[in-house]
Amino acid sequence: MNLTLDLDSEVPIYQQIRDRIVEAVARGEAVEGDPLPSTRQLAADFGINFHTVNKAYDLLRQEGVIRVNRKSGAVIRRDPYSGPPEPGFAEDWEERMGVLLAEATVHGLDHDDVVRRCAAMLSGFRAGERATS
Amino acid sequence: MNLTLDLDSEVPIYQQIRDRIVEAVARGEAVEGDPLPSTRQLAADFGINFHTVNKAYDLLRQEGVIRVNRKSGAVIRRDPYSGPPEPGFAEDWEERMGVLLAEATVHGLDHDDVVRRCAAMLSGFRAGERATS
Repeated sequence: MNLTLDLDSEVPIYQQIRDRIVEAVARGEAVEGDPLPSTRQLAADFGINFHTVNKAYDLLRQEGVIRVNRKSGAVIRRDPYSGPPEPGFAEDWEERMGVLLAEATVHGLDHDDVVRRCAAMLSGFRAGERATS
Repeated sequence: MNLTLDLDSEVPIYQQIRDRIVEAVARGEAVEGDPLPSTRQLAADFGINFHTVNKAYDLLRQEGVIRVNRKSGAVIRRDPYSGPPEPGFAEDWEERMGVLLAEATVHGLDHDDVVRRCAAMLSGFRAGERATS
Protein backbone atom coordinates (compact mmCIF):
# COMPACT_ATOMS: atom_id res chain seq x y z
CA MET A 1 0.00 0.00 0.00
CA ASN A 2 1.43 3.33 -1.08
CA LEU A 3 0.33 6.18 1.14
CA THR A 4 0.69 9.76 -0.07
CA LEU A 5 0.33 12.42 2.59
CA ASP A 6 0.18 16.17 2.09
CA LEU A 7 1.96 17.67 5.07
CA ASP A 8 0.86 21.18 4.01
CA SER A 9 -2.84 20.30 3.87
CA GLU A 10 -5.37 21.68 6.34
CA VAL A 11 -6.61 18.11 6.81
CA PRO A 12 -4.94 16.68 9.95
CA ILE A 13 -2.29 14.06 9.19
CA TYR A 14 -4.04 11.31 11.20
CA GLN A 15 -7.19 11.96 9.15
CA GLN A 16 -5.22 11.76 5.91
CA ILE A 17 -3.68 8.43 6.94
CA ARG A 18 -7.12 7.12 7.81
CA ASP A 19 -8.67 8.41 4.56
CA ARG A 20 -5.90 7.02 2.34
CA ILE A 21 -6.19 3.57 3.95
CA VAL A 22 -9.98 3.55 3.52
CA GLU A 23 -9.51 4.48 -0.14
CA ALA A 24 -6.89 1.76 -0.65
CA VAL A 25 -9.31 -0.82 0.77
CA ALA A 26 -12.15 0.53 -1.40
CA ARG A 27 -9.96 0.25 -4.49
CA GLY A 28 -9.04 -3.30 -3.57
CA GLU A 29 -5.34 -2.45 -3.14
CA ALA A 30 -5.59 -3.79 0.40
CA VAL A 31 -7.76 -6.76 1.31
CA GLU A 32 -8.75 -8.62 4.44
CA GLY A 33 -5.72 -9.93 6.29
CA ASP A 34 -3.23 -7.59 4.62
CA PRO A 35 -0.78 -6.17 7.15
CA LEU A 36 -0.34 -2.45 7.61
CA PRO A 37 3.08 -0.95 8.30
CA SER A 38 3.85 -0.68 12.00
CA THR A 39 3.05 2.73 13.50
CA ARG A 40 6.78 3.33 14.13
CA GLN A 41 7.66 2.38 10.55
CA LEU A 42 5.02 4.66 9.03
CA ALA A 43 5.97 7.50 11.36
CA ALA A 44 9.63 7.13 10.38
CA ASP A 45 8.79 6.99 6.66
CA PHE A 46 6.99 10.33 6.81
CA GLY A 47 9.00 11.95 9.57
CA ILE A 48 5.90 12.34 11.74
CA ASN A 49 5.13 11.52 15.35
CA PHE A 50 4.13 7.88 15.85
CA HIS A 51 1.27 9.04 18.10
CA THR A 52 -0.24 10.57 14.96
CA VAL A 53 -0.15 7.19 13.23
CA ASN A 54 -1.54 5.56 16.38
CA LYS A 55 -4.47 7.98 16.30
CA ALA A 56 -5.23 7.04 12.69
CA TYR A 57 -5.01 3.30 13.40
CA ASP A 58 -7.18 3.73 16.47
CA LEU A 59 -9.85 5.45 14.39
CA LEU A 60 -9.71 2.70 11.75
CA ARG A 61 -10.00 0.08 14.48
CA GLN A 62 -13.05 1.81 15.98
CA GLU A 63 -14.58 1.95 12.51
CA GLY A 64 -14.00 -1.77 12.07
CA VAL A 65 -11.71 -1.34 9.05
CA ILE A 66 -8.62 -2.83 10.69
CA ARG A 67 -7.88 -5.00 13.68
CA VAL A 68 -4.83 -4.61 15.82
CA ASN A 69 -3.13 -7.63 17.27
CA ARG A 70 -0.26 -7.42 19.73
CA LYS A 71 1.60 -10.13 17.85
CA SER A 72 0.76 -9.56 14.19
CA GLY A 73 0.24 -5.80 14.34
CA ALA A 74 -2.46 -3.99 12.38
CA VAL A 75 -4.18 -5.86 9.55
CA ILE A 76 -7.13 -5.05 7.30
CA ARG A 77 -10.31 -6.46 8.80
CA ARG A 78 -13.00 -5.11 6.55
CA ASP A 79 -13.14 -4.95 2.78
CA PRO A 80 -16.02 -4.70 0.29
CA TYR A 81 -16.49 -8.50 0.47
CA SER A 82 -17.05 -8.55 4.22
CA GLY A 83 -20.80 -8.36 3.83
CA PRO A 84 -23.45 -5.79 4.73
CA PRO A 85 -22.61 -2.77 6.87
CA GLU A 86 -22.62 -2.94 10.64
CA PRO A 87 -25.70 -1.61 12.46
CA GLY A 88 -25.84 2.16 12.53
CA PHE A 89 -23.24 2.66 9.82
CA ALA A 90 -25.69 3.48 7.01
CA GLU A 91 -27.57 6.08 9.08
CA ASP A 92 -24.40 7.83 10.19
CA TRP A 93 -22.98 7.72 6.69
CA GLU A 94 -26.18 9.12 5.19
CA GLU A 95 -26.10 12.02 7.62
CA ARG A 96 -22.56 12.95 6.61
CA MET A 97 -23.45 12.49 2.95
CA GLY A 98 -26.42 14.84 3.44
CA VAL A 99 -24.09 17.55 4.74
CA LEU A 100 -21.70 17.14 1.80
CA LEU A 101 -24.55 17.28 -0.72
CA ALA A 102 -25.97 20.36 1.03
CA GLU A 103 -22.54 21.97 0.67
CA ALA A 104 -22.44 21.14 -3.04
CA THR A 105 -25.89 22.73 -3.41
CA VAL A 106 -25.01 25.89 -1.48
CA HIS A 107 -21.83 26.34 -3.53
CA GLY A 108 -23.70 25.97 -6.81
CA LEU A 109 -22.54 22.57 -8.08
CA ASP A 110 -24.97 21.19 -10.64
CA HIS A 111 -27.11 18.40 -9.16
CA ASP A 112 -27.01 16.10 -12.20
CA ASP A 113 -23.28 16.61 -12.41
CA VAL A 114 -22.90 15.69 -8.73
CA VAL A 115 -24.78 12.41 -9.23
CA ARG A 116 -22.70 11.63 -12.32
CA ARG A 117 -19.46 12.33 -10.45
CA CYS A 118 -20.51 10.10 -7.55
CA ALA A 119 -21.31 7.26 -9.93
CA ALA A 120 -17.96 7.74 -11.71
CA MET A 121 -16.02 7.75 -8.44
CA LEU A 122 -17.82 4.62 -7.24
CA SER A 123 -16.99 2.80 -10.45
CA GLY A 124 -13.31 3.16 -9.48
CA PHE A 125 -13.99 1.19 -6.30
CA ARG A 126 -14.68 -2.50 -5.81
CA ALA A 127 -18.35 -3.42 -5.80
CA GLY A 128 -19.36 -5.09 -2.57
CA GLU A 129 -20.53 -8.44 -3.91
CA ARG A 130 -19.59 -11.16 -1.50
CA ALA A 131 -17.60 -13.91 -3.16
CA THR A 132 -19.34 -17.29 -2.84
CA SER A 133 -16.64 -19.78 -2.08
CA MET B 1 -34.18 29.04 10.92
CA ASN B 2 -34.69 26.21 13.39
CA LEU B 3 -31.46 24.61 14.50
CA THR B 4 -31.51 21.21 16.17
CA LEU B 5 -28.33 20.21 17.94
CA ASP B 6 -27.48 16.86 19.49
CA LEU B 7 -25.42 17.63 22.56
CA ASP B 8 -24.69 13.90 23.04
CA SER B 9 -23.33 13.41 19.53
CA GLU B 10 -19.65 12.72 18.83
CA VAL B 11 -19.78 15.47 16.21
CA PRO B 12 -18.43 18.67 17.81
CA ILE B 13 -21.12 21.28 18.51
CA TYR B 14 -19.50 23.95 16.31
CA GLN B 15 -19.49 21.46 13.44
CA GLN B 16 -23.17 20.66 14.02
CA ILE B 17 -24.09 24.35 13.97
CA ARG B 18 -22.13 24.80 10.75
CA ASP B 19 -23.67 21.68 9.17
CA ARG B 20 -27.25 22.61 10.12
CA ILE B 21 -26.86 26.11 8.68
CA VAL B 22 -25.42 24.75 5.41
CA GLU B 23 -28.38 22.35 5.20
CA ALA B 24 -30.88 25.15 5.89
CA VAL B 25 -29.36 27.19 3.06
CA ALA B 26 -29.39 24.16 0.74
CA ARG B 27 -33.06 23.56 1.50
CA GLY B 28 -33.85 27.20 0.82
CA GLU B 29 -34.96 27.84 4.41
CA ALA B 30 -32.35 30.58 4.59
CA VAL B 31 -31.52 32.80 1.60
CA GLU B 32 -29.01 35.52 0.82
CA GLY B 33 -29.33 38.41 3.21
CA ASP B 34 -31.17 36.47 5.91
CA PRO B 35 -29.81 37.30 9.35
CA LEU B 36 -28.48 34.59 11.66
CA PRO B 37 -29.07 34.78 15.40
CA SER B 38 -26.31 36.56 17.26
CA THR B 39 -23.64 34.28 18.68
CA ARG B 40 -24.68 35.22 22.22
CA GLN B 41 -28.35 34.55 21.47
CA LEU B 42 -27.64 31.14 19.93
CA ALA B 43 -25.29 30.23 22.77
CA ALA B 44 -27.95 31.19 25.34
CA ASP B 45 -30.67 29.23 23.47
CA PHE B 46 -28.65 26.03 23.66
CA GLY B 47 -26.82 26.65 26.91
CA ILE B 48 -23.46 26.42 25.17
CA ASN B 49 -20.36 28.61 25.18
CA PHE B 50 -20.59 31.52 22.75
CA HIS B 51 -17.04 30.80 21.60
CA THR B 52 -18.44 27.55 20.19
CA VAL B 53 -20.95 29.52 18.12
CA ASN B 54 -18.21 31.94 17.10
CA LYS B 55 -16.13 29.02 15.84
CA ALA B 56 -19.05 27.81 13.70
CA TYR B 57 -19.73 31.28 12.27
CA ASP B 58 -16.04 31.74 11.59
CA LEU B 59 -15.94 28.51 9.62
CA LEU B 60 -19.04 29.51 7.62
CA ARG B 61 -17.47 32.90 6.91
CA GLN B 62 -14.24 31.27 5.67
CA GLU B 63 -16.33 28.99 3.48
CA GLY B 64 -18.13 32.00 2.03
CA VAL B 65 -21.57 30.89 3.24
CA ILE B 66 -22.14 33.86 5.54
CA ARG B 67 -20.70 37.33 5.97
CA VAL B 68 -20.27 38.97 9.31
CA ASN B 69 -20.81 42.69 9.67
CA ARG B 70 -20.10 44.58 12.85
CA LYS B 71 -23.39 46.44 12.53
CA SER B 72 -25.82 43.93 11.06
CA GLY B 73 -24.25 40.78 12.50
CA ALA B 74 -24.04 37.52 10.56
CA VAL B 75 -26.12 37.15 7.41
CA ILE B 76 -26.33 34.50 4.71
CA ARG B 77 -24.03 35.39 1.84
CA ARG B 78 -24.19 32.36 -0.38
CA ASP B 79 -27.20 30.37 -1.53
CA PRO B 80 -27.78 28.05 -4.50
CA TYR B 81 -28.60 31.09 -6.67
CA SER B 82 -25.25 32.79 -6.08
CA GLY B 83 -23.74 31.29 -9.20
CA PRO B 84 -20.97 28.80 -9.86
CA PRO B 85 -18.65 27.63 -7.09
CA GLU B 86 -15.59 29.60 -6.09
CA PRO B 87 -12.22 28.43 -7.45
CA GLY B 88 -10.92 25.35 -5.71
CA PHE B 89 -14.23 24.43 -4.11
CA ALA B 90 -15.13 21.65 -6.54
CA GLU B 91 -11.72 19.95 -6.24
CA ASP B 92 -11.77 20.03 -2.45
CA TRP B 93 -15.37 18.84 -2.35
CA GLU B 94 -14.66 15.98 -4.75
CA GLU B 95 -11.77 14.83 -2.57
CA ARG B 96 -14.01 14.67 0.50
CA MET B 97 -16.75 12.98 -1.52
CA GLY B 98 -14.21 10.39 -2.68
CA VAL B 99 -13.40 9.52 0.92
CA LEU B 100 -17.09 9.17 1.84
CA LEU B 101 -17.76 6.95 -1.18
CA ALA B 102 -14.70 4.84 -0.32
CA GLU B 103 -16.12 4.42 3.17
CA ALA B 104 -19.48 3.32 1.76
CA THR B 105 -17.66 0.78 -0.41
CA VAL B 106 -15.52 -0.59 2.41
CA HIS B 107 -18.57 -0.98 4.65
CA GLY B 108 -20.50 -2.85 1.97
CA LEU B 109 -23.15 -0.33 0.90
CA ASP B 110 -24.54 -1.19 -2.52
CA HIS B 111 -23.16 1.16 -5.18
CA ASP B 112 -26.44 1.59 -7.11
CA ASP B 113 -28.21 2.23 -3.85
CA VAL B 114 -25.63 4.87 -2.89
CA VAL B 115 -26.18 6.74 -6.19
CA ARG B 116 -29.97 6.53 -5.75
CA ARG B 117 -29.73 7.87 -2.21
CA CYS B 118 -27.53 10.75 -3.30
CA ALA B 119 -30.01 11.69 -6.02
CA ALA B 120 -32.90 11.47 -3.56
CA MET B 121 -31.13 13.65 -1.00
CA LEU B 122 -30.25 16.23 -3.66
CA SER B 123 -33.87 16.42 -4.78
CA GLY B 124 -34.67 17.73 -1.30
CA PHE B 125 -32.34 20.68 -1.89
CA ARG B 126 -32.76 23.70 -4.11
CA ALA B 127 -31.31 23.32 -7.57
CA GLY B 128 -28.67 25.93 -8.28
CA GLU B 129 -30.25 27.60 -11.30
CA ARG B 130 -29.52 31.26 -11.18
CA ALA B 131 -32.70 33.34 -11.37
CA THR B 132 -32.68 35.65 -14.38
CA SER B 133 -34.13 38.90 -13.16
